[in-house]
Amino acid sequence: MATYPDLLRKFSCFRDLSEDQVNAIAQITDAVCYLPNHVLFNEGEAGKCLFFLVKGEVEILYNIGEEGMVRVDTVSSEEIVGCSAMIEPYTYTATGRCLTEVEVLEINITSLQELMQKDCPLGLKLQQHIIKVLMRQILELRLESPAH
Amino acid sequence: MATYPDLLRKFSCFRDLSEDQVNAIAQITDAVCYLPNHVLFNEGEAGKCLFFLVKGEVEILYNIGEEGMVRVDTVSSEEIVGCSAMIEPYTYTATGRCLTEVEVLEINITSLQELMQKDCPLGLKLQQHIIKVLMRQILELRLESPAH
Repeated sequence: MATYPDLLRKFSCFRDLSEDQVNAIAQITDAVCYLPNHVLFNEGEAGKCLFFLVKGEVEILYNIGEEGMVRVDTVSSEEIVGCSAMIEPYTYTATGRCLTEVEVLEINITSLQELMQKDCPLGLKLQQHIIKVLMRQILELRLESPAH
Repeated sequence: MATYPDLLRKFSCFRDLSEDQVNAIAQITDAVCYLPNHVLFNEGEAGKCLFFLVKGEVEILYNIGEEGMVRVDTVSSEEIVGCSAMIEPYTYTATGRCLTEVEVLEINITSLQELMQKDCPLGLKLQQHIIKVLMRQILELRLESPAH
């Protein structure tokens, strides 16, 4: 497991990290390509990876009672998916399935948590970026919500 | 400015912090009550406080072009509002207005950022809680979204 630091630098959240920090993350990251219909992660499963979408589209599905699996969102490049694996109880709260061919960076969660504990300022920066991504998603969802 | 540490401990995110950590946050927090229609924060304004809702309801409004201010969400107790003030560019991305009488804990953002830099593990824990709150909001918004 490992990828090229330059692949990480395509993402804005890694750009202001030091070379050592990017190298450390590259060591625990895999660059992987998947075909359509591949399931990246399953709702309820223990979180193994955090996914940075480089290319392609991923649908987010929830299992909502009798209706079964229902698509609740579609995400594309530059997005982060599987964030729920980063926080207690460290399981995926949704299913992520590839709609197209997808290129992702998969960061091992256990190793990332260790790295963030060891290099706390790195942890703060990464989590801040995740907060940013989530807030943008909330903004988009609110604007398309029927509530208003 | 300061409040009682016990008021903070009502919120799950402060419960697993040490006594010193809760005391430090209490020092930079105010417990405040507002009447209906009071504006907690304005879209576009520099972020001054992070708000923990103790009691009451707050509506979240966006300024969306010709329609003007539109309600996109309603939040109630145990929620955190004004999270966008925590991340670059440190401004509120929405307006928060009290719908009822509201009791909030207001944490000074500048002091909180300083505290999080100084006590990095505390920073990581707080960010993690914010991520949790945002993920729950996303889950709720997705389920009520017409997209699926």
